[in-house]
Amino acid sequence: MSDIAADAPDTEDPETELDKDDRLKPEFVDAVIDAVETGDDEAARELAGRLHPADIADLFEQVGRDQRSDLAAALSELLDGEVLAEMNDFVREDLVDQLDNVQVADLAGNLETDDAVAIIEDMEAGDQREVLSALDPDDRAAIEEALTYPEESAGRVMQRELVAVYENMTVGDVIDYLRDNQDDTLEFWEIFVVDTAHHPVGTCALSWILRTPREFLISDVMKREQTLIPVDMDQEEVALRFKKYGLISAAVTDSSGRLVGVITVDDIVDIISEEAGEDILRLSGAGEGDINQPVSEAYGGRVRWLIANLGTALVASFIISIFGAAIEEMVALAILMPIVASIGGNAGTQTMAVAVRALAMNELTRSNTWRTIRKELTVATLNGATIAILIGIGAGLVFSNWLLGAVIATAMLVNIVVAGLAGVFVPVTLERMDQDPAVASSVFVTMITDSIGFLAFLGLAVAAGLVG
Amino acid sequence: MSDIAADAPDTEDPETELDKDDRLKPEFVDAVIDAVETGDDEAARELAGRLHPADIADLFEQVGRDQRSDLAAALSELLDGEVLAEMNDFVREDLVDQLDNVQVADLAGNLETDDAVAIIEDMEAGDQREVLSALDPDDRAAIEEALTYPEESAGRVMQRELVAVYENMTVGDVIDYLRDNQDDTLEFWEIFVVDTAHHPVGTCALSWILRTPREFLISDVMKREQTLIPVDMDQEEVALRFKKYGLISAAVTDSSGRLVGVITVDDIVDIISEEAGEDILRLSGAGEGDINQPVSEAYGGRVRWLIANLGTALVASFIISIFGAAIEEMVALAILMPIVASIGGNAGTQTMAVAVRALAMNELTRSNTWRTIRKELTVATLNGATIAILIGIGAGLVFSNWLLGAVIATAMLVNIVVAGLAGVFVPVTLERMDQDPAVASSVFVTMITDSIGFLAFLGLAVAAGLVG
Repeated sequence: MSDIAADAPDTEDPETELDKDDRLKPEFVDAVIDAVETGDDEAARELAGRLHPADIADLFEQVGRDQRSDLAAALSELLDGEVLAEMNDFVREDLVDQLDNVQVADLAGNLETDDAVAIIEDMEAGDQREVLSALDPDDRAAIEEALTYPEESAGRVMQRELVAVYENMTVGDVIDYLRDNQDDTLEFWEIFVVDTAHHPVGTCALSWILRTPREFLISDVMKREQTLIPVDMDQEEVALRFKKYGLISAAVTDSSGRLVGVITVDDIVDIISEEAGEDILRLSGAGEGDINQPVSEAYGGRVRWLIANLGTALVASFIISIFGAAIEEMVALAILMPIVASIGGNAGTQTMAVAVRALAMNELTRSNTWRTIRKELTVATLNGATIAILIGIGAGLVFSNWLLGAVIATAMLVNIVVAGLAGVFVPVTLERMDQDPAVASSVFVTMITDSIGFLAFLGLAVAAGLVG
Repeated sequence: MSDIAADAPDTEDPETELDKDDRLKPEFVDAVIDAVETGDDEAARELAGRLHPADIADLFEQVGRDQRSDLAAALSELLDGEVLAEMNDFVREDLVDQLDNVQVADLAGNLETDDAVAIIEDMEAGDQREVLSALDPDDRAAIEEALTYPEESAGRVMQRELVAVYENMTVGDVIDYLRDNQDDTLEFWEIFVVDTAHHPVGTCALSWILRTPREFLISDVMKREQTLIPVDMDQEEVALRFKKYGLISAAVTDSSGRLVGVITVDDIVDIISEEAGEDILRLSGAGEGDINQPVSEAYGGRVRWLIANLGTALVASFIISIFGAAIEEMVALAILMPIVASIGGNAGTQTMAVAVRALAMNELTRSNTWRTIRKELTVATLNGATIAILIGIGAGLVFSNWLLGAVIATAMLVNIVVAGLAGVFVPVTLERMDQDPAVASSVFVTMITDSIGFLAFLGLAVAAGLVG
């Protein structure tokens, strides 16, 4: 019954080129590529012509890098700005590189400022200048101004196209103004009410306007408490503000408080999903990791991290080397020592992931840091005691040596508790130092758990008189 | 200059209880708690009364668990359904447990279906029944129906309150209908056009209605291509659909294709940020990890993971134990072996994070799996070669043993290449088997990189005649 409910609308869907997860079917992708490779551009166009721009963008992402320029040539009339705006950054950059600058200007000119900026901002300076000079003056001015704001700031994400009205207008005036000023490309969800100096004084959802008789003043309908976005605000902060207050759109103001643009929630959806994804990738040391990232960039981004981890691994090795004689005497130490380090590392990573996530969501603040540390310490102690008992009994039995069991149990408890502390302390400290906790936390936490793991286990073995 | 722009609107902001990142200032939280603890509820109410519901929710999240019921008693008149809807799940559950069921029904009755369901779905069955029976019949029916849908499905997330009109109505009819049917609590961004059987036939953004003269038919204004959401669809799929097509709201249909509700993008923003965060936490084995999660749940969720990892660590230890004699003969092997395993693990985690992310975003599909594997193999070979050279030369120098250097270099290259393959293969295979790749990938990848790391290094050492 529930299967039918879930699948019925999909199978009825005329877009049979999509599977039930909205992904292009491999057979469909193959059919388009076959058509392109046999020179039957018309067939390719016909197939792709049925797709939503977002799916055409997907098509380019799904094919190989070497097939993209042929595909672009075949589908040139479908490859509009909207398709480019939907495309993965790496794939788009690749494609834009292959277009000439007048073509890029053509595409960008038809887009809202934010989408045009997304296409142009990654181009090389020379190409960027050429594209800008090929744009019409209004578009150029808007894009040039956007480019003066820092990357990933509200100024880059906002669109300048918006509806602003004066507070002395009536609902009827507003409706007449909208009917007279046809700009069919602009979709908007709220209108902004400004004073004569163009400072926003209120926001009005369209549903309120539609429900209100014509004679009412717009200033009686609008909401005066607004969430304004400073034009320099980082996009991650903007996204948190949208999420926190459930915004659909928000006015962006410049340093003198004038309305300069609007950010809409559809862009925020992309930013939130991007930023949350970046945190996973950063925590794992995969940099900007993306399956569409060119090999050279992926290599450069990841090898740096591996070299950093080589450094931390050397610290651990150095600690082991101090206990070389003990290991020669009792090889069981070499067999067991990676367990202590590895479980400690996992415990540290758990706590670190929770802390990094809470910091990113503004949930871990100066008000609850100490409470969080106390809580993590309790969890770590419980975890440590559980694992210590398991491994202690296991090692004692396997090696018929209960002192060895006690040593590894104690080392495990110590390392998991240290891991729990490090998992909160490291990211919180990095955040206080204005560093991104997602980028550097892993290296420090791993170094701590590896070193303490080996030191505690081997050191306790010596101290307990197991060896030497 | 840019500093002023960024900060000015914040310092002008009357809500000085917030810092520049929209977090409650610790001093403000302390002031409220001081007032509550000295019994000055009125002062607490006055302080908190200035806050947005989302910030009142934050206030409850920021204080200790033992302070929450006193705070709730002091702020009872501010603690409305909207505040509860904004609250962290764990904190809300805690609070709702302390309220009596009639109070919960009161709060839920004032909310849209999706928010009411969010509050009620986590209650125990008995309490849930009492709350439902205290609701008025319409609300009860709506919530009961929502609860029949699976957790985290569209049916739970949708609200049933929406505006639907018939296709033979004119723009003027629609505006008149909206003016006559005042329901001031409902905000909406699009209206849905239905046929007489209540099947959606089109969607109409409010901006199109406002721009169109009264005499036009709504069916000439609406967009016929709509993205419909089956009521059983998983919320993560719904979120991807919103993101892909840039939706503001979407009609939800039941198994017979009738319009039963609407999902709006503000709920999607929460879902996207939740789901992306879940992936970080799952990859790290932190379960539902949340700084507000009770200790017992955090312990239960995380210790299971550590025990699983204990299992994989034992496999690695078993491999080392095979080479016990070699290690006794040459302690340098024990000193160096964790490096091979640890760097391999890091390399595997990098690739795995990229693959898990790409799977979650529907970017890694059957069309590009092989291409992705080839690419990751290339990156892994480059990374492996780089690290192999570094560690080979280093080990050769430190131990004055170039054969040892060659052995560790080869083992490192092998392990990093295997890590790269495992990092894609494991999550892709789990996904094909309908398992969540974020949950189980780490255990498998770590087991592979640890085992191969020790096996390649120690095995090669023996094979090369370094020992024994």
